[in-house]
Amino acid sequence: MTDAFERSLELHRQLGGKLATHSKVPLRTQDDLSLAYTPGVAAVSRAIEEDSGRSFELTVRGNSVAIVSDGSAVLGLGNIGALAAFPVMEGKAVLFQEYAGITGIPICLDTQDPDELIQAVRWLAPNFGGINLEDIAAPRCFEVEQGLQDLGIPVMHDDQHGTAVVVLAAVLNGAKVKGVKIEDLTVVINGAGAAGTAIARLLRCVGQDPNVCVPVRDVLVCDSRGILGPHREDLNPYKRELLKWSNRERREGTLHDALEGVDVFIGVSKGGLVSEDDVRRMASDPLVFALANPVPEIMPDAAIRAGAAVVGTGRSDFPNQINNVLAFPGIFRGALDSGAAFIDDAMKIAAGHALAEMVARPSAEAVIPSPLDKAVAHRVAQAVAKAAPPERRR
Amino acid sequence: MTDAFERSLELHRQLGGKLATHSKVPLRTQDDLSLAYTPGVAAVSRAIEEDSGRSFELTVRGNSVAIVSDGSAVLGLGNIGALAAFPVMEGKAVLFQEYAGITGIPICLDTQDPDELIQAVRWLAPNFGGINLEDIAAPRCFEVEQGLQDLGIPVMHDDQHGTAVVVLAAVLNGAKVKGVKIEDLTVVINGAGAAGTAIARLLRCVGQDPNVCVPVRDVLVCDSRGILGPHREDLNPYKRELLKWSNRERREGTLHDALEGVDVFIGVSKGGLVSEDDVRRMASDPLVFALANPVPEIMPDAAIRAGAAVVGTGRSDFPNQINNVLAFPGIFRGALDSGAAFIDDAMKIAAGHALAEMVARPSAEAVIPSPLDKAVAHRVAQAVAKAAPPERRR
Repeated sequence: MTDAFERSLELHRQLGGKLATHSKVPLRTQDDLSLAYTPGVAAVSRAIEEDSGRSFELTVRGNSVAIVSDGSAVLGLGNIGALAAFPVMEGKAVLFQEYAGITGIPICLDTQDPDELIQAVRWLAPNFGGINLEDIAAPRCFEVEQGLQDLGIPVMHDDQHGTAVVVLAAVLNGAKVKGVKIEDLTVVINGAGAAGTAIARLLRCVGQDPNVCVPVRDVLVCDSRGILGPHREDLNPYKRELLKWSNRERREGTLHDALEGVDVFIGVSKGGLVSEDDVRRMASDPLVFALANPVPEIMPDAAIRAGAAVVGTGRSDFPNQINNVLAFPGIFRGALDSGAAFIDDAMKIAAGHALAEMVARPSAEAVIPSPLDKAVAHRVAQAVAKAAPPERRR
Repeated sequence: MTDAFERSLELHRQLGGKLATHSKVPLRTQDDLSLAYTPGVAAVSRAIEEDSGRSFELTVRGNSVAIVSDGSAVLGLGNIGALAAFPVMEGKAVLFQEYAGITGIPICLDTQDPDELIQAVRWLAPNFGGINLEDIAAPRCFEVEQGLQDLGIPVMHDDQHGTAVVVLAAVLNGAKVKGVKIEDLTVVINGAGAAGTAIARLLRCVGQDPNVCVPVRDVLVCDSRGILGPHREDLNPYKRELLKWSNRERREGTLHDALEGVDVFIGVSKGGLVSEDDVRRMASDPLVFALANPVPEIMPDAAIRAGAAVVGTGRSDFPNQINNVLAFPGIFRGALDSGAAFIDDAMKIAAGHALAEMVARPSAEAVIPSPLDKAVAHRVAQAVAKAAPPERRR
């Protein structure tokens, strides 16, 4: 790890960052200039003035996504602010380009007030075909994302939904490895922040048909004080809303109590260590997704010793890396291609199923594709575009 | 022109705009990802968190300029708004790349309130090494530019200062063609908006030594109601400030009155037609820069018939095209290279002189370089960087 840190720093220093731009038009002759810029470009401006929808066709807007962050919850670094968050967003920008051919533009905003973040993105909207919110702390991230759903372009907080889509794919294929139906699974999610909340929401309807809602058997969400349930008086509105479709049996207790007899563990919090004994107390052949980074809630070898059928982590040095790069490039590619005005649950679920189907024969070692497989984004994009019906398009 | 309009529209439609991004780092292997993104990038974020100045060295920020507009004064199209302005800013972005190797990012803001524009740019500042304000209507443009000079990165309104720098170069070499010193010239500027104001300001100190202020003999600025002077009761604060160093002889009257006996005409307004008779009433061998677009205040052949020693326009189909692309790429390149915290008059004047010196033997047909000459930006950048002394750097 130290080695990756030092080499990364040196690479960034040598190159002066990662993102570069180029022109798609030649700019050598007077004629070139008169087409790319004045006077010709005036015709393009006029065309957009007459029909605002043409901005997607006549400018880079139709192929661009802003990666917007306030730097409040960056990787494992916490609230480091806009400036220090920038290299992460710049990295995401080049991933957008490399995986999906999307012009990603890093936009780190020097405010952490939700209303100001919403205002800033509204002012910026004419420049982009989509907005990928990133590394914004919960619960502010929910407010910002919800406050932008009427923008007319897709706005998605990747830490929530990108993660949820990849986890859905892993659970779908994990159920196959385990030999059970996904709707028969009871799932424990440790972490009620951005990722935990989005995963819980997505598990409400996991069937492939967006018109028929198929939930998992039950979801138990835990925060640092234990299982979320009606007995808890300390829940914020976002956690309270989760009670509508989680913890049907009204269980109480700690994370360790929650794991008793359940099929799936999904760890998306820094805290919450899981022991071999915890895994042994789960149902037989449990699925364990220990996504805390850099140290998983339980190491894969320990989970397997305790009987786990499938283990996934956030790390590249173990099998089944739950990496958002499997989801966000394809989701936004599909949303842009279809002209979707927003990204809804049906599109996310379609992405999860497409991702799962990319693994021809799911096994303990491979429930999701490799983050290096660049065919993934294309397949996910097709599924997402198909799931965005005409009435949801611009 | 119609042909350029149609071909430009078709080109934009075929390519989906002009700007594209690419990654400077490979993204093929797990190792690539771990250096460009997680976990390696965390070291870059930490380095910037410890020393904010390193953001210029470790990210694209050190080589990037935002082209910020509110779409309120776009080309000859007027107030067309952010969305319709976008193709123009996208064009400017690719010019930044092509002429100066700068990553230009178009940012059209969906507000026209000066305080909101200032607020938006402040929130966006961590992403960019410089801010090129563009196509913002006067007098709002002055307020926005002035309100951002403490940002710590160069902020320059190109319609003001880019134009002024190119005009300065044209006047410097025009004086050589005419065989007089620039400090002996009396100049009439028609137009008291962004460009007119900036040109008038820059002509206060036209000598090459930034420590010694050498003004032209006098400047008369005209707006649609005639010569600006102490007799005028209708001036806004920006026009009133111009009286401090313009119209020393306290002349009154119309544009036509103003031209009587003066050496230089600079037209930067839509109105204000100039006749052959007007030019004949100027001093002998006058310099005529008729920059209204697409129709100049007087056509070059008419001005020459009336005795003009040098004629320049904004058009590419006549000699001496006053084109901002001669200035802004080099000015920002020099500012970025020197780490300048802002762009001051000394840097602009250095840019004007460098531009003038690129023409080895100034003549009536060539007082400024061709906008296609890509060596210009490099020379301008060197001069600008040299003019930014250490105490003005970050």
